[in-house]
Amino acid sequence: PEFRADISSVEDLIDENTIGLVGIAGTTEFGQIDPIKELSDLALSKNIFLHVDAAFGGFVIPFLRESYEFDFALPGVTSIAADPHKMGFATIPSGGLLFQDSSYLHRLSVDTPYLTVNSQQTLSGTRSGASAASAYAVFKHLGRAGYERIVQRCMELTYELVARARESGIEPLIDPVTNVLVLDVPDADSVRSVLKTRGWDVSITRDPRALRLVIMPHLTRENLNLFADDLADVVK
Amino acid sequence: PEFRADISSVEDLIDENTIGLVGIAGTTEFGQIDPIKELSDLALSKNIFLHVDAAFGGFVIPFLRESYEFDFALPGVTSIAADPHKMGFATIPSGGLLFQDSSYLHRLSVDTPYLTVNSQQTLSGTRSGASAASAYAVFKHLGRAGYERIVQRCMELTYELVARARESGIEPLIDPVTNVLVLDVPDADSVRSVLKTRGWDVSITRDPRALRLVIMPHLTRENLNLFADDLADVVK
Repeated sequence: PEFRADISSVEDLIDENTIGLVGIAGTTEFGQIDPIKELSDLALSKNIFLHVDAAFGGFVIPFLRESYEFDFALPGVTSIAADPHKMGFATIPSGGLLFQDSSYLHRLSVDTPYLTVNSQQTLSGTRSGASAASAYAVFKHLGRAGYERIVQRCMELTYELVARARESGIEPLIDPVTNVLVLDVPDADSVRSVLKTRGWDVSITRDPRALRLVIMPHLTRENLNLFADDLADVVK
Repeated sequence: PEFRADISSVEDLIDENTIGLVGIAGTTEFGQIDPIKELSDLALSKNIFLHVDAAFGGFVIPFLRESYEFDFALPGVTSIAADPHKMGFATIPSGGLLFQDSSYLHRLSVDTPYLTVNSQQTLSGTRSGASAASAYAVFKHLGRAGYERIVQRCMELTYELVARARESGIEPLIDPVTNVLVLDVPDADSVRSVLKTRGWDVSITRDPRALRLVIMPHLTRENLNLFADDLADVVK
């Protein structure tokens, strides 16, 4: 399986109560990208909204060597979530919500005549602006070239770890699309336990159970190879 | 007028689509407390929810010398908002939402099987726990006696400013209930402008237009008297 949305299944589920579709660009568990182009075509043909959850992928996909259609270049995409605090390197809790048309943002308006602004578009109440400032600062500091450098290095390390895993007879569940690598090891839960005794705390996907690794920018090639050595030893 | 909810008006507005009432304990503009006891009786008789917005008052009212019924001691009160980041002295963005019955909290549950906890009860996504820690720390540090000391000093200063204003022929719109003081000056907007030229930036209530002062704990008696001197001079 590709671990992404099956368009015919999505189409079958649409009925007269359906107001929108959600596609994921960079899934939490597999780093996979749903077929957003096909979802966009479907949303247009049914005249419904399409939200793209690119919370993780929004700051990865635009900076990959390979290009994927997932944003407002597709006319059916009406909103996109992209979290600066994940691969965007801004601070928690900065989050991004983008709309194809600013009128959608105004639908969120709440009147606040008792404040210094008369209306707000947010689900949160009083909060610090620091994380918005941090997002702006890191965008200016890194720029597109900076994000490309970081993301492409993460992908190189991801591919290297795939190659090391294959030397040990371990296959990834899918060829990694983003810097999320899911390795298909027999009895993943016990492999995880043994790795933990060696100081490696990895996560597990729910279905199927497999080792899930997110190759973040702070990881060094040296640590990655030490992990690959231990993994080879554990599954031997 | 008392600038608080009129029970007979509230009762008239209830129809078969009404699921709940909201009362405010410590209004933003006037620091007034709605008749929560009467709202509680009404909610019980109509079998609907009663939410008490004590965002500001939740950390003031319990520590006043005078006692007001506004919390779960009233059986009709089903939920209360009380913000630790306002008069609770915790950091932004800590906010408090209390339920009479924990089952109401569970109604907010969102499944999060991809995280380390399987469900969450919140409207926010990824966020720092620092403000919750700050709230806990300040509760432990100040204790009930600490809050009483701070709130009662704020009230003393509020009453002193009322006395100084009256010496200048200015009356408060209501006898202050909490540490929010609204002064009925002629042509409040221009009084505000003149005060601003003297370095005092005060807010104005919407209806009627009047000077609104929140006597927060950092205010000194000396500054309060300097303000009263300037106010007397401006309205002279």
